Amino acid sequence: MSTGTSKTGTTTQVHETSGGTVLREGAFGNARGLVCRECGATQPLGPHYACLECFGPLEIAYDFPEVTREQIEAGPRNIWRYKALLPVPDDIESSPNTEPGFTRLLWAENLGRELGITTLWVKDDSTNPTNSFKDRVVACALSAAVEFGSKVFACPSTGNLANAVAAAGARAGIKTVVFIPSNLEHPKQVNSAIFTDSLVAVEGNYDDVNRLASEIAGEEDGWAFVNVNVRPFYAEGSKTLGYEIAEQLGWRLPDQIVIPVASGSQLTKVDKAFQELIKLGLVEDKPYRVFGAQAEGCGPVATAFKAGVDAIRPVKPDTIAKSLAIGNPADGIYVLDIARRTSGAVEEVDDDAIRDAIVLLARTEGIFTETAGGTTVAVLKKLVETGQLDPDLETVVINTGHGLKTLDAVSGRVAPAATIAPTYDAFAASGIV
Amino acid sequence: MSTGTSKTGTTTQVHETSGGTVLREGAFGNARGLVCRECGATQPLGPHYACLECFGPLEIAYDFPEVTREQIEAGPRNIWRYKALLPVPDDIESSPNTEPGFTRLLWAENLGRELGITTLWVKDDSTNPTNSFKDRVVACALSAAVEFGSKVFACPSTGNLANAVAAAGARAGIKTVVFIPSNLEHPKQVNSAIFTDSLVAVEGNYDDVNRLASEIAGEEDGWAFVNVNVRPFYAEGSKTLGYEIAEQLGWRLPDQIVIPVASGSQLTKVDKAFQELIKLGLVEDKPYRVFGAQAEGCGPVATAFKAGVDAIRPVKPDTIAKSLAIGNPADGIYVLDIARRTSGAVEEVDDDAIRDAIVLLARTEGIFTETAGGTTVAVLKKLVETGQLDPDLETVVINTGHGLKTLDAVSGRVAPAATIAPTYDAFAASGIV
Repeated sequence: MSTGTSKTGTTTQVHETSGGTVLREGAFGNARGLVCRECGATQPLGPHYACLECFGPLEIAYDFPEVTREQIEAGPRNIWRYKALLPVPDDIESSPNTEPGFTRLLWAENLGRELGITTLWVKDDSTNPTNSFKDRVVACALSAAVEFGSKVFACPSTGNLANAVAAAGARAGIKTVVFIPSNLEHPKQVNSAIFTDSLVAVEGNYDDVNRLASEIAGEEDGWAFVNVNVRPFYAEGSKTLGYEIAEQLGWRLPDQIVIPVASGSQLTKVDKAFQELIKLGLVEDKPYRVFGAQAEGCGPVATAFKAGVDAIRPVKPDTIAKSLAIGNPADGIYVLDIARRTSGAVEEVDDDAIRDAIVLLARTEGIFTETAGGTTVAVLKKLVETGQLDPDLETVVINTGHGLKTLDAVSGRVAPAATIAPTYDAFAASGIV
Repeated sequence: MSTGTSKTGTTTQVHETSGGTVLREGAFGNARGLVCRECGATQPLGPHYACLECFGPLEIAYDFPEVTREQIEAGPRNIWRYKALLPVPDDIESSPNTEPGFTRLLWAENLGRELGITTLWVKDDSTNPTNSFKDRVVACALSAAVEFGSKVFACPSTGNLANAVAAAGARAGIKTVVFIPSNLEHPKQVNSAIFTDSLVAVEGNYDDVNRLASEIAGEEDGWAFVNVNVRPFYAEGSKTLGYEIAEQLGWRLPDQIVIPVASGSQLTKVDKAFQELIKLGLVEDKPYRVFGAQAEGCGPVATAFKAGVDAIRPVKPDTIAKSLAIGNPADGIYVLDIARRTSGAVEEVDDDAIRDAIVLLARTEGIFTETAGGTTVAVLKKLVETGQLDPDLETVVINTGHGLKTLDAVSGRVAPAATIAPTYDAFAASGIV
């Protein structure tokens, strides 16, 4: 313990992490350490992601104080209303960030009618600052990077994460370096390059980019790779999706929830959020069923679920749902656990079903989702049709991103109904109405 | 007066408009009639937009009850928290709509530093449901269309409005017909066609499309053209930008505000909102300065302002800021009045300055704006440089839309810094950091 100066200029207590980083007191709020998800071994908070004992994944453990609904409701209209439940300091709102979260939870009466579901809600994360749920996790990673004194804020990404990291870094005034596959679609390149002068195109696929990122994280000091060495802090941001759904339902849990699965992290964190809310007495304890959504072209978790096995066999992705195209999902085994524990399922759909579902969601609810959201809605439809999801139980489906980023997926399906001369006669003859 | 059944199934009082439409009691909340902005003549609420006496533009007049900050703060986190100040029924939240508004007001410390402004805020409407401020006005127009019993919800548009109308109509389950110029950019076409099967491409420019819409509105019964025959209701939605800015500043008005000018409606409605808040005692009365932003390729209001004249000479637009490209702005003369009354100004910038400002806003605040927002930020910069705006007064700049819709404007300016092989050596040799 020594005395230092915090960001806000006040004198506070600080302490060192195992890695020698000097942290100010309260840098991570109510988080008390890192704990291995496999063997339960603990270590101090720091930019670490693998257990020293067994190399298992680390996650954040907390000592939560009493937290009330009223405290949360009095907070800002973004994810920081839940700051007491996140690994962030109490003064997080004064640090420049993109202020994501508290997105719409829309009652989807039309879509429910189409699918035969009595009560259906869409949690719409496409209206986040950079139009995907990644703004939530990146905001938490940014806080960790700042507290660790990182000099570079970085990620490997196929698109949404790149956008979120580059934007958050720009706003926070921290140097960003963003790695993408060199064949990434032009719109996603522009939507990252607009924010950073250090967008790096890598000749290879996402797996190649990811490996390079891990190598750089090992070689360079002071780099915070959001989804590599600060991953435990980053991943906690997804809990806010679960908190918001519960709060927006009037502080109760839904009966069923359908969540896309890429690495599987989001699904496990929504479940963690529900469990925390129950333990803290913020919602009533009740059964809920968790369903995972994958694309057939990258469905290793769905395959394992259907086969009834625990091991996940990696695949080489081949699907239009590129933001879900992780062939070797890090949290896949935990997704299986949760789906089985809650009487849920993990299901998969083909690319045509994904395209159809994008149009279906748009035409029924006025939401233009990307391919990941199309996958989730298509899986929801399949779950009803196959009797795996109870259409009479209250259901939430998560839309994680925006269709403007994956225009090509549907641009062959939708078009003007007619092209006419600018006259009333031409209109009347067009048969439009 | 007769007895009828409202949407929610309860028996309510209804009355007829001058046009014979049967309205339920309270269909337009505290609105009491339509009043001519030119001659002050009044007429009953109905789908009308021109004065019967002088053909001047109509706007909504109200009998406001007492409205408190607490009532507003207890409302939903969207524009309906201000429903008492809008021409919508008290049960508006139960009608399906996109639930726009209550977007971020971000303290723009980095941009302020770049421009030499002490206290600067960005009101970011790019995170609305269809990523522009148009969701606000369309939500109010939709309410009017529903109350008038309209069978078709329609608009002529160059993009943002088309997106908003098609999405809101889909969610509300009302037939939409959306007219666009046939040469509109592909992304904007997809972002409308995804929501409606009646997107109509018109061979001509926006003026041609607009004329056709007016012709159809005159010929067809039961069509609600949001920006034609229900324009008075539609336009009121822009007031919510002003209300939100004041509430998010802690119930006070900024000293200066910079607003883009297309038709000029938004600027006049933000001023109207500020005046209403003062009259209702919701904010303290104080001087504020209103600045309008145009592109040089379509700057008829700026031209008139600088010339010190009252008449606005229409121009043929030629600018990358297509959503501001209205050559004959309907509310231009009122923009002049307000800029002069408040000691503001109307300024214009060229296309290169617009492109530069899009990158500047992204790099400083992590916000990717469209060309209209680029215009507004570029004008803000010019206003400081020319001494027209006081850099020591608190200033708000409005970002009305999303850069993903106008990618081409900047795709030649931003790109990956390097393309490398997927190895650490290649990275180390790249000179990225």
